[in-house]
Amino acid sequence: MKKKGILVVVSGFSGSGKGTVMKELLRRYDNYALSVSATTREPREDEEDGREYFFKTREEFERMIAEDALLEHACYVENYYGTPKAYVEEQLSLGKDVILEIEIQGALQIKKRYPDTLLLFLSPPDAQTLKRRLVGRGTESMDVIESRLSRAVEEAEGIESYDYFVINDDLDACVEEVHELIQGEHRRVSRSMELIDEIREELKEFNK
Amino acid sequence: MKKKGILVVVSGFSGSGKGTVMKELLRRYDNYALSVSATTREPREDEEDGREYFFKTREEFERMIAEDALLEHACYVENYYGTPKAYVEEQLSLGKDVILEIEIQGALQIKKRYPDTLLLFLSPPDAQTLKRRLVGRGTESMDVIESRLSRAVEEAEGIESYDYFVINDDLDACVEEVHELIQGEHRRVSRSMELIDEIREELKEFNK
Repeated sequence: MKKKGILVVVSGFSGSGKGTVMKELLRRYDNYALSVSATTREPREDEEDGREYFFKTREEFERMIAEDALLEHACYVENYYGTPKAYVEEQLSLGKDVILEIEIQGALQIKKRYPDTLLLFLSPPDAQTLKRRLVGRGTESMDVIESRLSRAVEEAEGIESYDYFVINDDLDACVEEVHELIQGEHRRVSRSMELIDEIREELKEFNK
Repeated sequence: MKKKGILVVVSGFSGSGKGTVMKELLRRYDNYALSVSATTREPREDEEDGREYFFKTREEFERMIAEDALLEHACYVENYYGTPKAYVEEQLSLGKDVILEIEIQGALQIKKRYPDTLLLFLSPPDAQTLKRRLVGRGTESMDVIESRLSRAVEEAEGIESYDYFVINDDLDACVEEVHELIQGEHRRVSRSMELIDEIREELKEFNK
């Protein structure tokens, strides 16, 4: 039987570069699957249904909530966002480690429901770098930057609920570190009980 | 300030090859320090004081117990074995990850006293291999082998107290895996609070 995959939630400050890290992780290793969220917001011009998001009507989304077809969901600026359950469960049972790139509220919902979820929080090496990255994009007004910064303060409050705090200073090193953390997680005693019990049974046989 | 090292306990079935794995780990990486146990048993011909063990008289050892100079101790076959505290604390404060190669009873004493100790359990890939390795040495009588096997059954009962169950199938892969698990542990949120709090403070400053 194939070993079940691990459910991994990746959150991080905006400006932590988590999107790039995840993209590169999936490019390098084939044991990962990235969950695609569902949303009721309008697709942007360059977005494709099923790639960035599954685009749903409000009615469809509320039916998914009613049918318990979402691992978590939340409402931002009058739009729903959520994680469809079916794809995640299918990939986990195929042995894939499934990555959800979601925010802290969703992360906590999932951890409560699936306590063996691995929670990673990505951060730039320090707050100055975080600020520089937010400002450096050059595409946002000062208002937007400030609202992001104040959101970062809120995000930072939730870090204690996460398992690991991963610093993204160098993309290559960060991708490898995330990979090692997830793969190391497969060695947890609580995730190895099947093998441990097998060894115990065999050992008892020898002693008969 | 240098980040404090991690206290790592490595246990495993006899025949798991943990001695070889640890030796190779220390040869490859310079961020580890191996703790040397103290004992009241007689040194063997090829053993050196301070290398295999610190050899102590019963009186000296009991003084160490009385002075709380040991992290853990136990008595086997009328001899004391224990882990001197001073060396471990010194190396941890220098930022070294300190490895204790001890048995489950000692491991549990240490975990109780220092809850953030990382506990690794090493095992051959399956019980047949374990048996083959025990028998294969060719140096022990059937009695000794059987007593080791029955001890392995007992050791296996304690695995749930450990954090990770690491399989030693290939020496090279096992050394790297142990290294990655220990280094990954440095990224635990609970071990990164100093940095996290710094980032929080800086973020709050920006928002003023």
